[in-house]
Amino acid sequence: MSITTPEGFVAAGLASGIKVSGALDLALVATEGGVAVPTAATFTTNLAAAAPVQVSRAHLTANGGLTAGVVVNSGNANAATGARGRADATTMCELVAAGLDVPVQHVLVCSTGLIGITLPMQPVTDGIPALVASRSASAGSARDAAIGILTTDSGSKEVLIENPTFRVAGMAKGAGMLAPDMATMLAFLTTDAAVDPAPLADLLRIAVRDSFNAMTVDGCTSTNDTVVLMASGRAGTIDPAMVGDAVTEACSTLAGQMLADAEGASKIVQVRVTGARSDGEAHVAARKVADSLLVKCSLNGEDPYWGRVASDLGSAGVDFEMDRLAIAYGGVTVCRDGIAFDHDAGALASHLAGALIDIHCHLGLADGNGVVMGVDLGHGYIDENRTTS
Amino acid sequence: MSITTPEGFVAAGLASGIKVSGALDLALVATEGGVAVPTAATFTTNLAAAAPVQVSRAHLTANGGLTAGVVVNSGNANAATGARGRADATTMCELVAAGLDVPVQHVLVCSTGLIGITLPMQPVTDGIPALVASRSASAGSARDAAIGILTTDSGSKEVLIENPTFRVAGMAKGAGMLAPDMATMLAFLTTDAAVDPAPLADLLRIAVRDSFNAMTVDGCTSTNDTVVLMASGRAGTIDPAMVGDAVTEACSTLAGQMLADAEGASKIVQVRVTGARSDGEAHVAARKVADSLLVKCSLNGEDPYWGRVASDLGSAGVDFEMDRLAIAYGGVTVCRDGIAFDHDAGALASHLAGALIDIHCHLGLADGNGVVMGVDLGHGYIDENRTTS
Repeated sequence: MSITTPEGFVAAGLASGIKVSGALDLALVATEGGVAVPTAATFTTNLAAAAPVQVSRAHLTANGGLTAGVVVNSGNANAATGARGRADATTMCELVAAGLDVPVQHVLVCSTGLIGITLPMQPVTDGIPALVASRSASAGSARDAAIGILTTDSGSKEVLIENPTFRVAGMAKGAGMLAPDMATMLAFLTTDAAVDPAPLADLLRIAVRDSFNAMTVDGCTSTNDTVVLMASGRAGTIDPAMVGDAVTEACSTLAGQMLADAEGASKIVQVRVTGARSDGEAHVAARKVADSLLVKCSLNGEDPYWGRVASDLGSAGVDFEMDRLAIAYGGVTVCRDGIAFDHDAGALASHLAGALIDIHCHLGLADGNGVVMGVDLGHGYIDENRTTS
Repeated sequence: MSITTPEGFVAAGLASGIKVSGALDLALVATEGGVAVPTAATFTTNLAAAAPVQVSRAHLTANGGLTAGVVVNSGNANAATGARGRADATTMCELVAAGLDVPVQHVLVCSTGLIGITLPMQPVTDGIPALVASRSASAGSARDAAIGILTTDSGSKEVLIENPTFRVAGMAKGAGMLAPDMATMLAFLTTDAAVDPAPLADLLRIAVRDSFNAMTVDGCTSTNDTVVLMASGRAGTIDPAMVGDAVTEACSTLAGQMLADAEGASKIVQVRVTGARSDGEAHVAARKVADSLLVKCSLNGEDPYWGRVASDLGSAGVDFEMDRLAIAYGGVTVCRDGIAFDHDAGALASHLAGALIDIHCHLGLADGNGVVMGVDLGHGYIDENRTTS
């Protein structure tokens, strides 16, 4: 599997020296021949958005949803870098545009790493021409790109969804803010299906909502989060609904790989809320529980203290009636009608000892459903995040 | 200093057996002679409010802001206990009312401890008559009451504000949810100033807003949080503004004692936000930073990674412009105009090594100000909260 398996794409990765370790720190995903193809992207909602997010947003508006490639650097977020940062991000696009012989607005840019430090431009200006020159559709080039976007990830995150008539591939980095310089979630997807920019944007928005945005590690929203989806059209026109399903599956797989790579976490938790007033309220309530420090500590200790779950639901800001609440861990009901419910303590302990915990909260009000994936909170998280050095 | 120093009050504390350890677990604060006096209270906004909160709210509405006493048990929160819990909380009030010879609506009730477990009523029904019988204005009785409300607090929390013409005293327990059965913040205040119920409620609301509600440990809102203020009137009519200042000072002192008692925390942080669009937006932004896991971990590691602060401000949901942002730790500016600012690294490290960290964020938009006090996040917090056993 690789980002270049769908037809019409090339990739590259290179060590430019932004990372003093000498690890790969530049990546490119581009179309064969510099063709401008339908492209959709979602960006962080953080108002402290990094320079590359600002530049990519502007380019995507200017190019009407058609791009020829996206360039990424790791090791520096180019965030909180002001006008200088925006100029540097634009320079990155210009260097790629020159190499691909396309207009600068046809190039998007992403960065990931520490915030507040000016991007070292010598490695960038030396590295990008070599990066562009080395692009190819080979599995090796794609693999270099998948590694070049990483920060403290323990390994690359890749996915390939193969349908009879088209393919969707993806690569990603990050898992929320699990380590100091892994401040960002980035994902890049390619497909050879032909989909126009407008439906492509719609299906990506839904895929991100149901995958990356249904996952939480610490409730923090990064300055650099970006997801880009490019559609080469080589496989011909495909029903956007089918493409959407494949993109959602690809994003969900990458999100799962991120959670599994959550350093400092020993368990993954799936919080399911049903019976809420609406799907939106269910999602808010599930996120409140998944982000709760006390619930996360309980999971680390394998303690089924459902009182904390009830307390979080009661303060989630959604419609809630204690007397209608039911809570189950791994199918073992511990609370019904808002009070303790007799249960099989052995089955409960067995579920909590596992690596994937399921918490189901039924609010008993209406038909709203939502799921948020999270992790526990242990010493490892703190050790990862105490210092940036 | 004691809760009975203001004239007109008696108190008591007793070990009833709710706590298997044999520690004091019942407390009473009442008026001399069972006189009904102006009383104000604020309760948790959690929709999973515990039975005693529901009963006290109803009594305070029925009695028009006049009560003769408040009874407290520790060791069990009587939360998530349904109709049975409400009946038990009412029984607690009835037992006190019988002892004081007052209507049941003139008694308020609070509980603190584990959620989801039915209150053991034999200790309660045996203990409360003895508790009421032992009430006195002595310092010893007041001290027993201050201890009887504690759970895992390392010691009692008391305050006395003495003005030439009146006094305000208080006792409290808790520090957010720092340990499993310390799920609640309770505070009880007495004054001998004469203030009518309506202005008393107004001044308590402001005092709580500027003290307990300007403090965060883990962003969790308990099912049982309650603050009660009783005014005996023995010192005669006092300007409510003067009483309000004294009550705010008393609440702020108790809040500071709670933060200082935050088990698992090594540092207290004061997050000041200025230049926000409004005071409300400043408060929201300050709370977002004080609740941020990544900022809390940084403080534990004494790392001035202001990029996380900027990222939290950008995702706080308030008006924000990165290019106008300034951030200082202990007066050392590290970010100005949204980018890194040259600073004295030695002075910065020295401030971060201290026990009280000041983070000042200037948004540069308007005149809104807000302050929220918080704590760092270290291994101790997790160790306290992994299990309830």
